[in-house]
Formats: sequence, structure tokens, C-alpha cells
Amino acid sequence: MTSPPGDPGLLAPGWAGSAAAAAAGDDAYLRALLDAEAALTRAQAALGLAPAEAAAAVTGAARSGAFDVRSLAARARAGGNPVIPLVADLTNAVGEPYGPYVHRGATSQDILDTAAMLVAARTLELLLADLGRTAGALARLAAEHRDTALPGRTLTQHAVPTTFGLKAAGWRSLVLDARDRVSAVRDALPVQLGGAAGTLAAFGAYGAADPAALPEAYARELGLRAPDLPWHTLRTPVADLAGCLAFTTGALGKIAADVLTLSRTEIAEVAEGSGGGSSAMPHKANPVRSTLIAAAARRAPHLAATLYGAMAAEDERPAGAWHAEWEPLRDLLRLAGGAARDAAELAEGLRIRPEAMRAHLDLTGGAIVSERLSAELARELGRARAKELLTRLTGQGRPLAEAPELADADLDPTHYTGSAGSLTDRALERR
Amino acid sequence: MTSPPGDPGLLAPGWAGSAAAAAAGDDAYLRALLDAEAALTRAQAALGLAPAEAAAAVTGAARSGAFDVRSLAARARAGGNPVIPLVADLTNAVGEPYGPYVHRGATSQDILDTAAMLVAARTLELLLADLGRTAGALARLAAEHRDTALPGRTLTQHAVPTTFGLKAAGWRSLVLDARDRVSAVRDALPVQLGGAAGTLAAFGAYGAADPAALPEAYARELGLRAPDLPWHTLRTPVADLAGCLAFTTGALGKIAADVLTLSRTEIAEVAEGSGGGSSAMPHKANPVRSTLIAAAARRAPHLAATLYGAMAAEDERPAGAWHAEWEPLRDLLRLAGGAARDAAELAEGLRIRPEAMRAHLDLTGGAIVSERLSAELARELGRARAKELLTRLTGQGRPLAEAPELADADLDPTHYTGSAGSLTDRALERR
Amino acid sequence: MTSPPGDPGLLAPGWAGSAAAAAAGDDAYLRALLDAEAALTRAQAALGLAPAEAAAAVTGAARSGAFDVRSLAARARAGGNPVIPLVADLTNAVGEPYGPYVHRGATSQDILDTAAMLVAARTLELLLADLGRTAGALARLAAEHRDTALPGRTLTQHAVPTTFGLKAAGWRSLVLDARDRVSAVRDALPVQLGGAAGTLAAFGAYGAADPAALPEAYARELGLRAPDLPWHTLRTPVADLAGCLAFTTGALGKIAADVLTLSRTEIAEVAEGSGGGSSAMPHKANPVRSTLIAAAARRAPHLAATLYGAMAAEDERPAGAWHAEWEPLRDLLRLAGGAARDAAELAEGLRIRPEAMRAHLDLTGGAIVSERLSAELARELGRARAKELLTRLTGQGRPLAEAPELADADLDPTHYTGSAGSLTDRALERR
Amino acid sequence: MTSPPGDPGLLAPGWAGSAAAAAAGDDAYLRALLDAEAALTRAQAALGLAPAEAAAAVTGAARSGAFDVRSLAARARAGGNPVIPLVADLTNAVGEPYGPYVHRGATSQDILDTAAMLVAARTLELLLADLGRTAGALARLAAEHRDTALPGRTLTQHAVPTTFGLKAAGWRSLVLDARDRVSAVRDALPVQLGGAAGTLAAFGAYGAADPAALPEAYARELGLRAPDLPWHTLRTPVADLAGCLAFTTGALGKIAADVLTLSRTEIAEVAEGSGGGSSAMPHKANPVRSTLIAAAARRAPHLAATLYGAMAAEDERPAGAWHAEWEPLRDLLRLAGGAARDAAELAEGLRIRPEAMRAHLDLTGGAIVSERLSAELARELGRARAKELLTRLTGQGRPLAEAPELADADLDPTHYTGSAGSLTDRALERR
Repeated sequence: MTSPPGDPGLLAPGWAGSAAAAAAGDDAYLRALLDAEAALTRAQAALGLAPAEAAAAVTGAARSGAFDVRSLAARARAGGNPVIPLVADLTNAVGEPYGPYVHRGATSQDILDTAAMLVAARTLELLLADLGRTAGALARLAAEHRDTALPGRTLTQHAVPTTFGLKAAGWRSLVLDARDRVSAVRDALPVQLGGAAGTLAAFGAYGAADPAALPEAYARELGLRAPDLPWHTLRTPVADLAGCLAFTTGALGKIAADVLTLSRTEIAEVAEGSGGGSSAMPHKANPVRSTLIAAAARRAPHLAATLYGAMAAEDERPAGAWHAEWEPLRDLLRLAGGAARDAAELAEGLRIRPEAMRAHLDLTGGAIVSERLSAELARELGRARAKELLTRLTGQGRPLAEAPELADADLDPTHYTGSAGSLTDRALERR
Repeated sequence: MTSPPGDPGLLAPGWAGSAAAAAAGDDAYLRALLDAEAALTRAQAALGLAPAEAAAAVTGAARSGAFDVRSLAARARAGGNPVIPLVADLTNAVGEPYGPYVHRGATSQDILDTAAMLVAARTLELLLADLGRTAGALARLAAEHRDTALPGRTLTQHAVPTTFGLKAAGWRSLVLDARDRVSAVRDALPVQLGGAAGTLAAFGAYGAADPAALPEAYARELGLRAPDLPWHTLRTPVADLAGCLAFTTGALGKIAADVLTLSRTEIAEVAEGSGGGSSAMPHKANPVRSTLIAAAARRAPHLAATLYGAMAAEDERPAGAWHAEWEPLRDLLRLAGGAARDAAELAEGLRIRPEAMRAHLDLTGGAIVSERLSAELARELGRARAKELLTRLTGQGRPLAEAPELADADLDPTHYTGSAGSLTDRALERR
Repeated sequence: MTSPPGDPGLLAPGWAGSAAAAAAGDDAYLRALLDAEAALTRAQAALGLAPAEAAAAVTGAARSGAFDVRSLAARARAGGNPVIPLVADLTNAVGEPYGPYVHRGATSQDILDTAAMLVAARTLELLLADLGRTAGALARLAAEHRDTALPGRTLTQHAVPTTFGLKAAGWRSLVLDARDRVSAVRDALPVQLGGAAGTLAAFGAYGAADPAALPEAYARELGLRAPDLPWHTLRTPVADLAGCLAFTTGALGKIAADVLTLSRTEIAEVAEGSGGGSSAMPHKANPVRSTLIAAAARRAPHLAATLYGAMAAEDERPAGAWHAEWEPLRDLLRLAGGAARDAAELAEGLRIRPEAMRAHLDLTGGAIVSERLSAELARELGRARAKELLTRLTGQGRPLAEAPELADADLDPTHYTGSAGSLTDRALERR
Repeated sequence: MTSPPGDPGLLAPGWAGSAAAAAAGDDAYLRALLDAEAALTRAQAALGLAPAEAAAAVTGAARSGAFDVRSLAARARAGGNPVIPLVADLTNAVGEPYGPYVHRGATSQDILDTAAMLVAARTLELLLADLGRTAGALARLAAEHRDTALPGRTLTQHAVPTTFGLKAAGWRSLVLDARDRVSAVRDALPVQLGGAAGTLAAFGAYGAADPAALPEAYARELGLRAPDLPWHTLRTPVADLAGCLAFTTGALGKIAADVLTLSRTEIAEVAEGSGGGSSAMPHKANPVRSTLIAAAARRAPHLAATLYGAMAAEDERPAGAWHAEWEPLRDLLRLAGGAARDAAELAEGLRIRPEAMRAHLDLTGGAIVSERLSAELARELGRARAKELLTRLTGQGRPLAEAPELADADLDPTHYTGSAGSLTDRALERR
């Protein structure tokens, strides 16, 4: 078997080259696996279960860079996970006399789960930064266009007017909801430490008087939380990651769906800052950032479902459910991270065209305020006759302004944006 | 078109007949839709926007029971949602002069979303009760079997011993995680109120000085939260429901996966309290509760994914994304509710067979404690020679107790349960 | 436990009231279960394993209508499937002396799987009829609008012209692809017959010299195929149904996505025959049929995934994987059936607005034919200079027709539809 | 932006290093993209639309290896797909005078879709070979163990006996079903060629008298099929790939589920040829191949669902639906390919332990043949009394052989395997 070639992301313009992509790549996982191994020996040393020299030796070897991710990937196959060959290589690198302290008392899953939490924590940090940028840009858009009216659209049809400020404020509120969920999950990410079947028994065999103190020492080394119980088959942290990442991608997907609609040639109320071009059609400026976010939003729910499905994992450590998590979790981190990068650029660069919005408010010849007319006429004529009159007038295909029955009515769509302004103000108060 | 016939749940032994099934059924949705309509008029009356008599009249009519769910289901097709025909029927039922106050200023989605939140709140209450029962029964099992040793199993093979107490404590911790997530979501469920495009404009047209006060009044009427913004296409509440329900079903699915394994004829370490029989094979006692929970756990992630996918909803109200939520949300509520019912029965009735567990600890002829021997021998022989010796001994197919090299070793598997006891104690402290 | 109430489909405007909904409802499943039981006794009689009178008695009782679907749904819970109580009721209904011939030698799964195939066959027939109607209407649209030019749109932006004929021909080709896949699956639907563990052993115990002849006799009774092997855990038929139904819903979803786009207020190149209205906004005509199809297309892939996931079913009959299939299969049948009903109405009623299409071709001021200009100018100026010129001209914001450099160019978009016409012709030849 | 680092598959022991992994890797996609570009120029030359020298120059440059997949991955971001930078690089590499013939008349999607079909065709070939190996090994197992009896298990409990031959024959029939579906899909994989909006218009602009002849010439160059219509948003080929790959992974997942169960320490009726070890527990031999197949089977349905969901793609080319396909399609190819590799090894190496199977047949003290006794006693005593007697006897906890009422009964489980042998024979006739 030859070493597998690497994929730099030719099929992944949505995340390739992003900070999140690097933070969740194979190299980053290898880094995190080594961090997890080194921290384990240090934690044992901190509790007097290993000599300080062993901790230093393992930490030094782990940082040496002498590990070949391709070889590890190839050798992971025999035992079904990459920790087995990594422990062999790291033990070799440490050499005598401290090699035997490598991985002592742990099981592969302790290390791989802990590494996944490290990778997640590091990637979520980047994600949060881009969500913050996005929210900031959206706040500016919402404030600037607090009173910029445009058609509210429902089931693809003009309904009543709304404002671009309210739309942007709504986008921002979703981004903040995502931020809150991601932050909460990140703050709770735990180390994994249980040994072969989650009882910490081997640490006792190696001399620990109170093995249950080890997870806390381990967590301190890594800046993660100490769990109540080993969670080899209690997959709360993974399920919570699934949820917050699917949420985030969905939230950004809502923004993308709107931008794609509003960017259509016929609508053109917004445009991405720098559209993607076409070799043969020089006029085209494609909404590429939205497109890639929309693609991520189509994929993320399925990946999250894979992770939720993996909760039903049998025994102390399962045959398949755990293994099914690894790539989907990483894919989710990258998709969400890439989408957040694109969303930040999108929000920061979005060009708003108030004049197009204003023009579209007139497309229905006044019918866009028919709800208001309906309410006002109902006071005079009763609900039934008012509806009948309006149905007749809007069905004539002429602007309502020409109807003598509506001579006194205020048909200006920009006067019928309801509480859009105050809702926007209130939403922007949220930090 | 004839009225559609109803499905009582012939294909749904997992939830048919459960309290959750009724709480999320079409009749319950109709009840909630009517509650939502009546509360809307009352909220307007509370703010002086409608006469108190209108509120009373609408509330009375809504409670009258004079609505035909089959007819509404059939008539929902024309406009694509059931609120349109319901408003017609309710307006008729109220009659003059207060009929015009029905649904005034609202859009169909205000009512259907609010009704869905009411249904969710009511069903989650039932779910929480069954999670509570389950957690209670598991706490008792964990305490009673704190020191009952059994084989820890990883990748289907015996690894090292664990205890049934730790296993049950782990199950309980997942159930409590589910409870915490469900409670948090339930406490945040909001009313929906935005009018045609989420600006509350119609309420102004009908005379409200401060339409933004209406959602709060509305929320007070219904015991739900007032949202910051109308959330017609900001689907945080639905996504959060998806997450906590997929989590819950996955958590229960973990328990079911374990019970199914431990119930196997060859293992038989546990048995469901009342197994399902077979007509032709009188000896069979099938683990039916676990089977149905396992089936729910296979389905729930896909339903949750449908809901996460619906977050990418365009415009002020979308053409399809919203409609795609209705049945999956209800299905999830029922699946989780039914699974919780089954889990409570399962946990309360589960029979534990410590003697089978004890017998199985000997199945590998002592190899189940080879990790311990490995640690102890390594101290004497060094890691490499210890491993070599053990590999040789475990490969001989004879009990390790017969090996003279291990004459002094403690081969009793029940002595090698590590920190299982103290982990169990600590986990049970959580309330 | 009370009998569960039925859901007539209040949340399901996409399928409630459709022929497919009835064909896949609980009543239809009960009918099919009884058909399966009666056919089993008849098949045994046909092979001389049961008296003809027993076959007649069971068939008569099965047709008697004396079965209560609500009671069966409630009683299905104990054993985890509805066949167990049904066999009890049917045996009672047959009475002595032929009651013992009911279900003789079969297992519950034989009956429920066979019933599911019967339900599927019957529902697919209805689905195929609606796909046929849809394809017919689309053929007429394609032929009529073979040369009706409209903007081709890519990544939401005008690209180059196309024709509505080609668009409709493409829709039809997807519908025919769906038809072909559904037909092939329907023609292969098998009975299920294996007995307790798929060995047909009980039939031997009851006297059959060649039990393997029974599945063929059974298939003959029901008009289904005889399988090579019992397929209790070889789920090819269910997976094939999942595939063809997800395909069908996706195919119709493509049509809906296009109609929703083309129906937008700003585009309005097509309109549904009868749009759904709004109580408060008399001008609105919502594309309701497309909306409901789009909702189905969002859901179907997840349901199909549940079924593909159920292929990994352990043992001779599984604990959960099978049970997880029942509702998703039915849901898929209904969603696809309902979507096909809506698609037929949509296609038959769709109104085309060639004048709007024509007007939009001019929206980009000639840039929609820049690809052509690019090719033609490249012949004169070389590719690089041609591109530079066009980029400059399209960037000026003026119609290309005013550019002196293009004085001789053919800027008529309707002259640049390429092979759309001949592609349409060729596609329409497919039957 | 730095070039993205590549992932060699550290998290992917299921597919890393497999032939399928390489065949679907970024390098292979780059190869296929270049093949697609070169074939396009050759097809134009074959029809006289380009000089033969241009075809040779483009083909030569495409084969030169002078393309940097990392740089392309990084530059794909701007326009949202990797074809745009590739065309620039390839045009440069060809240089004057033939550079302008690169990609002439095509759109990015023509090339990327065609490349995906090439990659799929090449990977499916490898997959089919491994399915063939698997089927062959299973045929040998089925023939060899045609009459090896073991307990049939349903809902985790012993039901009636079956044979390992029938089990292996069933596995093989699923593998052959997968093979048939994969072959059919592979044989139908088409090139993509439509130009900017699927009308082939640019080819006319570049001088083609009959542009519709181009797709056929293009297909001939690449050994793929010519489609009836450009399928930029008619995604039949992708959906068909989704279906056959989810089917294949599910089929292999069934085998894995069985092997995992039968490998359990307490059951141990089969063992993988070379189990994966554990560093700390020298006795462990984990069923690693089955574990990795099971993991793939948990993931594939979700990936297939993503692809089915992408069928609902708007317009002539969509903003997101297409982009969402790329990685999931590749992931599916790899997961299925890797699972087939593991399945072939699993089937070829599987060790069968007939003595364990025989021993387990006695675990229930004869109750495993209670169905037979039920049938036989019913003849004497009537169904009701027979059932009552058996229920009493099986409930006593003593072997049935000790019951005087059954003194004359044949309690040998190996005599009650029904038609397992003849079913196996018949199934093995299928080629």
C-alpha cells in the first residue's frame, strides 16, 4: 500500500484556504493528537504518577515534528484508528527510558476524542471571529438602512413593504443566535479520559491512588473541561457540536438565500461586493459568496444528522458509530468555518441599491399596500364590502392611484412599513 | 374531493396511544390553532384595540368544538395551509358583529407557528415527565448495582471489567443532558406575531399606537415568550426543537442499543420487564421497548436534518421551507415522546442478572484483566517483555490462572473495576 | 390506554385528500394486511396444504370489514407490530374449524412486508398516472413554446438566451426518468415469505413437501413477484423504493424550483393556473402548487436516507431497523404521490407569458448576447482584445446597441438560442 | 492566502490508501478535468471546428503535468469553481496560437460534470471488482456451509435454526444486487456539454453547423454516453450515482452488522481473518473490517440524501445546489469503494466456527424448535392446547428433552432448517 495522496480542496471552494480549513485539517489533527498524548503524560507527572523527565521527554518528542501524517493515515487501517500507529511512532521518538510513559493507561479513543475537542475548540474560535465580523457588518447595514423600504415578499410574491434595515437586523439576530450556541458549546468541550472501558482502571494499575483526579489534571493541561464521566459512548459533546454547527450554517444559509434572491438580474436590489466572473460572458457578476454559503447550508444538516445518529452507540466503545463521526465532524467544522468566512466578506462588501428597492415598491400598482387599504376601507364599508372593492380594483390591472374610490387614500408604500424601524432599533440593542 | 381518512397509527407502535401522540395530533393542533386565534383577539382587547366582547366572542367560539378537522385538512390544500379555512370557519362561528375581529392583522404563519409552539410546549412537558421517570429508575439501578461487575465491551469484544452501576449512571447522565436541553428549549418557545411581512404594520392600520406591544400581550395570553423579532424566516425556535429532540432520541437510543445487546440470547445479562411474545415461538421474549426506541433513534436525526435544512428560508415568508417543517416537527415530537414513554417503562422494568454478568467475566479465561497484568508485569519485566509474555499466555487458549508465571497475580475480574464505583457515586450526585 | 385518534392530514396540504394518501393510509394498510393473510391461506390451499374451505373462510373473513384499525394500532404496541393483534382478530373472525389456518407458518414480517409491497404497488400506480399527466402537459408546453425565447439564468444572473420549450422539455425528461425508475421498481416488487427465520421451515412442519413452492404460489395470488430469497434483512425492494421515490420528488422539485423563480413578482414569466389567495392581501396569487412540491422535495431525501440506512439490519430479523422503515416508506409514497398530483395540476394549468420573457431579454442592454459577440469579435480582433472591448462596453451601463463598435452585430437575443429548438424536438421524441 | 494543505486521510481508515480513494482524489479530479478539456478540443477538431494541431496542442499540454492542484484549489474560490483557474492555466500552457481553442464554447459546469462522470466511471470499475471478489468469496462460504446450522436470530433472540450457508447466500445476493445497480449506472454515465445555458449556442457562434453533433463526438472521445439533453439542472446521473452507492454501502453494511454480532465474545461464531489489536489488551482481536464498513454504512445515506436534495436546482445552472454535490459525490465514491475493499478482505478471510454454532443451538434447551413442536403437537392436540403445553414446558427452565410429553419428538435443531439448503442452492445459481 502506498501512502495516500492528500486532497488540498479542489472541490471545496467554500472552505479551501480558510483558517478553519487549516485548523481542522489532517495536520491540525495530528498536532492535536500529539498535544493530547503529551498532556496525558504531563498530567500523570503532575499527580506524581510519572517522572517530570518523562513528561518533558514526551512533550519534547511530540513537538519535534518527526511524524508523517501520510504514513500514519496508511497505517491507521490495520487497527481502524490513527492513534495506534501514532503511539508506536511517539514511543519510538521518545525512546528509552521514557517511552513506556507514552499513552500509559489510555485507550485510543481517549486521545482521538480529546484531539477532536481541541480541534473543535480551535476552529470554533475562528468561526466565532467571523461570526463577529458578520454581525458587525450587518449591524452597520441595518442602522444605515433602517428606513430603506423595499417589498416584503412572501411565497415569492410582493406582500406588504418592509425595510432593508429590518431584514439585516433579522440576519444579524440569527448570527447572534449562532454565536451564542457556538460559544456555549465551545465553553463546555471536555477532555476524554477513561481508559479501555471507561473505568480509569489502568491508571490505578499504574499506581494512581485516585484515578478520578486524572481527568481534571488532564483538562487543566489542555484548557478543556473535565467531564463528569468518560463519554466514550455518551456523545453529548459531539451531538452539541453537530447542533450548533448545523444551526450556524443554516443561519448563514438564510442570509445567502436572501442575497441570492435579491441579486437576481430582475431584482438587483443588492449585489455582492465582488462578484465572480465568467470567461465567456464578461457582463456576469455572480453572487459567488452566497452560492458557496448556500451550498454549505444544503450539506450541513446531513452531516449533523450523521452525528446525532452516532449517539446510539453500543457498549463501552462501539464498532462503527464512533468511527462514523470523525470525518463528518471535521466536515461540519470546515463547512461552517468556510461559510462564516464567506458571510463576513459578503456582509462587509454587500452593496445596497435603495433606488431599485423603491422602484419595485411600485411594481404592483399600489397593491402592495392593499392590506392597509383593506383595514381602512373596512372601517367605512365593513370588511366584506372593503374586500370586494379591493379585489375588484387590484384585478383591473391599473394602478390603484387612478381609482377614484381611493382618491383620499395614502398609497405611498414607504408610509406602510409598520414597526420595522422600532423593531430594528430594538434588535440592534442586543450585543 | 372527499375528506381524508385519519391514521390512528397502525404503523407506529412506538408512539401510537402515547400521551405525546395525542398532544401532537391533528386534534391538538386544531386546538392550538384556535387557542392562538382566540389569544390574538384577547391580546388586542387587552391593549384596547378590540372590544372585550369581541375577545369573549372569539374565545367562546374557539372553544365551541364546532370545527371539523377533516374538512379543514381537505380545504387547506387550496391556499397551502390550514389557517385559511380555519379563519373562515371561525369567523363564521363568531358571526356578526365580532367576526371581523378574528385573525385581524395577522398572517397565517403567525397562527400556525404559534400553534406549533403551543403544541411543542405541551408535548415537551410530557416528554420531560417521562425523562424524569427514566432518570429516576436509572438512578435506582445504578445505586443498586454500583458494584455489580460485568465485562466492559469495546468493538464487540471483552475489554476490561466495568460495573452495571457505571453503565446505568452513564445512561442517566445522557437522560439528564437531554432533560436539560429540552427544558431550556421549552422555556424559550416564543409566540409568532408579525403580520404579512413581519412589520406588524396591519396592527397599526387597525389602530395600534404601538404595535410592538402586541407580541408581548400575545405571549402573556399564551404563556409563551415574546420574541425580539418576528421569526417567520428566522427559525431559531424550530432549529432548537430539532436539536433537543434529536438529542433526546439519540440519548434514549444509546440505552436501547445497550439493552438490545445485553438481552441477546447468548448474553442475557438484562431482560426487559415484559418481553413481546411470538405466536409461533412460545419461548421468545423480545426486547420490544428497546426495539421501538432504537427505531425512533434511527429516524429522528433525519427529521431534525429536515428542520435544520429549513432554516435557509428566503424572503419574509418562504415558499416551501416553512411548509416542509410542519410534519417533521410533529413527527419528532411524537417519536421522542413515544421513545421516552418506552424508556421509562424499560428502565422501570429492567431485570438485571448479576450471575450472568459474573459468569461472562470468566469467558476469556482471565484475559479480561490482561491490562492489569500488563501494568504489573511491566514493573517487573519491562513493558516489552511483559507484553510478550502476556501475548503468549493469552494465545494458548488456557485460563491464565493455570499459568505458573501468574501464580501470584490477582486475576479476579471483580477486583479490576477501577474507579467505576466512585464515578457512579459522583454521577448520581447530579440532580 | 385509549384508542389513538386519527390524523386526517391537517399539516399535510401536500398530500391530504389525494388518491395516493388514501392508497397509503392506515385503512389501506389494514386492507393490504388482510389481503396478505388471505392470500397466504389460499396459496397453501392451492398447493394442497390447506382445505379449500379454509381459504374461502379466511378470505371471506378478511373481506368482512370487521376489523378496527384504532384498536389494532393500540394493541400493536405490546409486541411491536400490528400483525400480532390482527392475526388474533382474524383468527377469531374465521372461528372454528378454519381459524388455525390463519397465518399458518408465517411470521409477522412476512405479512407486513407483503402488505407494504401491495400498498406500494397500488400507490405507485397512481403516481405513474400523475407523472403521465404531467409529462403530457409538459410536452404540450414544450411544443407550443419551442421557440419562445427567455433569458437563460445561471447563478441567478442572466447568461445567454434559451427557450421555454427547452426548459419544459427538460422538465419532461426528468419526469420520464422518474417514470422509468418507478415503473421498474414497481414491476419488481416481491412478496415476502420466509417464516420465523427465513427458512420456510414451518411450512414443512405443516406438511409441505416443497416449501419453496409456496412463495411462488403466494406471489401469484397477489400479483407480485416471487423473490429469490426471503428478504427480511435483504432490503433491496425497500431501498429501491426509497431511490425511485426520492428521485421522483427531486425531479418534481426541480420543476417547482423553476416555477417559483419564474413566478416572482419581478419576473412573472409564468403563473400557476390558480394561485392561492391571501385573506388580507387581495392582490396576491401565491404559487401554492409549486410551494407544496418544493416542500416535499425538501423532505423526501431525508426519508429515503432513513430507508437506505435501514439496510444495515442485523440477524434474520432486526430489532429496530425494520420498524424504522414503516412510517418513512409510507411518508415517501404519500409525499411523492401528493407532489405528482400537484405537478400534474401545475403543468396543466401553467400560464406562460412570452411578452415578459421577451422584455427580460433586453434587461441587460444586449449583454445577454455578449458570448456571441465575444466569439464573433474574437475572429476579428483575437480573443484578448475582443474580451477587453466587451468588458469595457458592458461596463458602461449603456445598451450595447448604442456602441458604434457593434454597429454591424446582431444583437437580437431571440437569434441566439443555439440548438434549443432541435434539442427540444429530439427530447420530445422520447415516449 | 496560502495554498491549502492536503489531507491524506488521517481520519479515514475506511478508505485511505484504497484504489478508490486515489481514483476519486483531487489529483484524479485534476486529471479528469484535463481529460475533459482536451477531449473537448479533440471533439471540435473531429467535426472540423478546430484545427487538428489545436487538438494535439491542448491534449499535449493537458498531459504535461504542469498543473498545481494546490494553487488551483486556492484560486477556485474567487469564481466558486476550479475550472475557471484551470482554463487560465491550460490556456497559458498551450500558448499561442492554439490557446484560444481551450474550453471554447463550454461552460465550467460542462467540464466539471464531465470530469465527475469520468472519475465516477473509473472508481465504479474498482468498486465492481471488489464487489466481484466479495461475491466470489461469499459463494464459496455459502457452498461450504450449506448445511452448517446455527441459531436464526430475530429481535436479538433465538428464533428457529437456519444455516450459515443461507446467511452467506443472502449476503451474496445483496452484493449482486449492488453490482447490478452499479453496473447499470456506470454504463449510463454521460458527458456534459451544453455551454453557458445548455443551448450549445456558443458552438454555433464558433462555426458549428450542427452543434448538437458535438456532445456525441465528445462522448466518443471519453468513452461516456451522449445525453439527450444537457443536464446542468437535470441531475439524473448524479441522483442515480447516489442511489447505487447508498445501496452498495447499505448492502455491505448488512454483512458488517451480522459479522459484528456473530463476532461478539459471547457468540464467536465467526471471526475476521486478521483482527485489529490493542496496545494494552493483548487478547483483543477486534473486527476492524466490519467496524469500518459499518461506519461507512452509517454515513452513506446522508451523503446520498444531499445529492437527491440537490436535484431541486433552479434555472439553467444553480447557485448552490450544484456546488453542494461535489464533495458528497466524491465522499460516497470513496466510502463505497473503501467499504468494498474491506468487504472483500472480510469475506475472503472470514473464519467460521461451526462448533460454536452447534453449541448455541442448544442454548435454549430445545425451545429453538418449539415452532416445529407447535405444529406437530397441534395436529394431535389442537392449536390452543399445543400452545398451552409448549408455553408451560418452555417456561419451566428445563431442557425440553426431559419433558415426558415430548419423548417421541425430534428435538434436534439441525433437523429443522427447513428449505435453507435448497434456497441456498438456488441463490447460488445466480451469476
